[in-house]
Amino acid sequence: MTNPIDPGSLSPDQARALFRAGLRVPTAGWCSGWTQANLIAVPRDQAYDLLLFAQRNPKPCPVLDVTEPGAVSAPLFAGDLRTDLPGYVVYEHGEPVAEVSDVTGYWRDDLVSFLIGCSFTFEDALREAGVPVRHIEQGTNVPMYRTNRMCRRAGEFGGPLVVSMRPVPAAQVADAVRVTARYPSVHGAPVHVGDPVELGIADLDEPDFGDPVEVRVDEIPVFWACGVTPQAAVMASRPKLAIGHAPGHMAITDARDSRYLVP
Amino acid sequence: MTNPIDPGSLSPDQARALFRAGLRVPTAGWCSGWTQANLIAVPRDQAYDLLLFAQRNPKPCPVLDVTEPGAVSAPLFAGDLRTDLPGYVVYEHGEPVAEVSDVTGYWRDDLVSFLIGCSFTFEDALREAGVPVRHIEQGTNVPMYRTNRMCRRAGEFGGPLVVSMRPVPAAQVADAVRVTARYPSVHGAPVHVGDPVELGIADLDEPDFGDPVEVRVDEIPVFWACGVTPQAAVMASRPKLAIGHAPGHMAITDARDSRYLVP
Repeated sequence: MTNPIDPGSLSPDQARALFRAGLRVPTAGWCSGWTQANLIAVPRDQAYDLLLFAQRNPKPCPVLDVTEPGAVSAPLFAGDLRTDLPGYVVYEHGEPVAEVSDVTGYWRDDLVSFLIGCSFTFEDALREAGVPVRHIEQGTNVPMYRTNRMCRRAGEFGGPLVVSMRPVPAAQVADAVRVTARYPSVHGAPVHVGDPVELGIADLDEPDFGDPVEVRVDEIPVFWACGVTPQAAVMASRPKLAIGHAPGHMAITDARDSRYLVP
Repeated sequence: MTNPIDPGSLSPDQARALFRAGLRVPTAGWCSGWTQANLIAVPRDQAYDLLLFAQRNPKPCPVLDVTEPGAVSAPLFAGDLRTDLPGYVVYEHGEPVAEVSDVTGYWRDDLVSFLIGCSFTFEDALREAGVPVRHIEQGTNVPMYRTNRMCRRAGEFGGPLVVSMRPVPAAQVADAVRVTARYPSVHGAPVHVGDPVELGIADLDEPDFGDPVEVRVDEIPVFWACGVTPQAAVMASRPKLAIGHAPGHMAITDARDSRYLVP
């Protein structure tokens, strides 16, 4: 399948129908004005530790909604969490065992799904402020990196902070900070501006998730906390089962971006 | 014991030592610049439902810290949670069974303590903005009320929103909103301004917790979400055991108010 002409103009329902039908694309730039979310689902026995992990690490893990055990939709997400994302990763004991576009076959009645804020949500605001968003310009997935910063542990969950990176012209870094700081529930202001080595990232061209993007000579790499962090915690902490979105392939929710904008 | 001369100038450590020695007073106006917190402790088996209740009701239940099971201190609170608050209420099956100044005898190794933001934290900022804080002027406890607004349920926990009330001169209501909105982690902006009947409060002079305060003729009652809400949920939901602070008798933490101020 090819992309529809203008994914930015679709409603969440329309986008979810395309994904349910099998379209597999990163969702940056999709459904302009609608909040996107990371998914991480774990059995009820692990849900307290994961919720506490999110509470202790609010920058990478801002919780937007949590389902009842086994539920496949949520107040924020009227679709079906098993089929309506463009891609999933299934983990068993921390190992990715499947990358699929439908997790119905893996679903269990005790799975608790967490919807966690995603920085794609503030990309419309960045673009409105004139800040370029390179991965959207390039039509690729955002680059994401494991860092050397460890999250605060909660029960069985610990692991590294994961970040997304957008190259920003030096003269616009302040704008990028100012604009994104107004969206604290979808990662907010950057966690790091500049030298990737300080985050333990050896080579920007080799992201751990997503695709590399061009960083131009007048641009500074700017790093935001990323909702793939719980999946890094799953890989580090090896719970029996977990289901996440494929990085960059988000849940498109029924909440407006403006809901997460602070005055 | 009588109050020390200037409770506002004490450090958290000094205040906690006085409370540990048996002083029982409401803490509004104490330890200027230091964040105050509500306490609710429940057995580990109920902790997921309570954490989810807080996540689903962030306005009354902004979580500042959660302890490990059985722990009596926390990164935010270097004191002893069993002795260093000026008052506690112990609940069994939702009934208050003891109001004491030391809960060491009730403590269990599986108790998880939640520290939840308290509106006392922004009262310094209100006073700096020239907004009167009547219960501090009167030297009484803040009045708190159960409302007719129900919280969003989580597992076994549900119940009414509890609010605190401060009378504000009509010309200063906007200032009170503006100042407190900047502290979202300690209840933020008011949930209601004006007629108490709309919240199901029949008589301001009969608060459910704390003391009544004078409302002058040019003043409007302004209501903020209150961290006693989890105790109302405990009373409604009847878990086997819960320990809370005595309303208005808060945990004084080692965090600065400025930590919870948003730009």
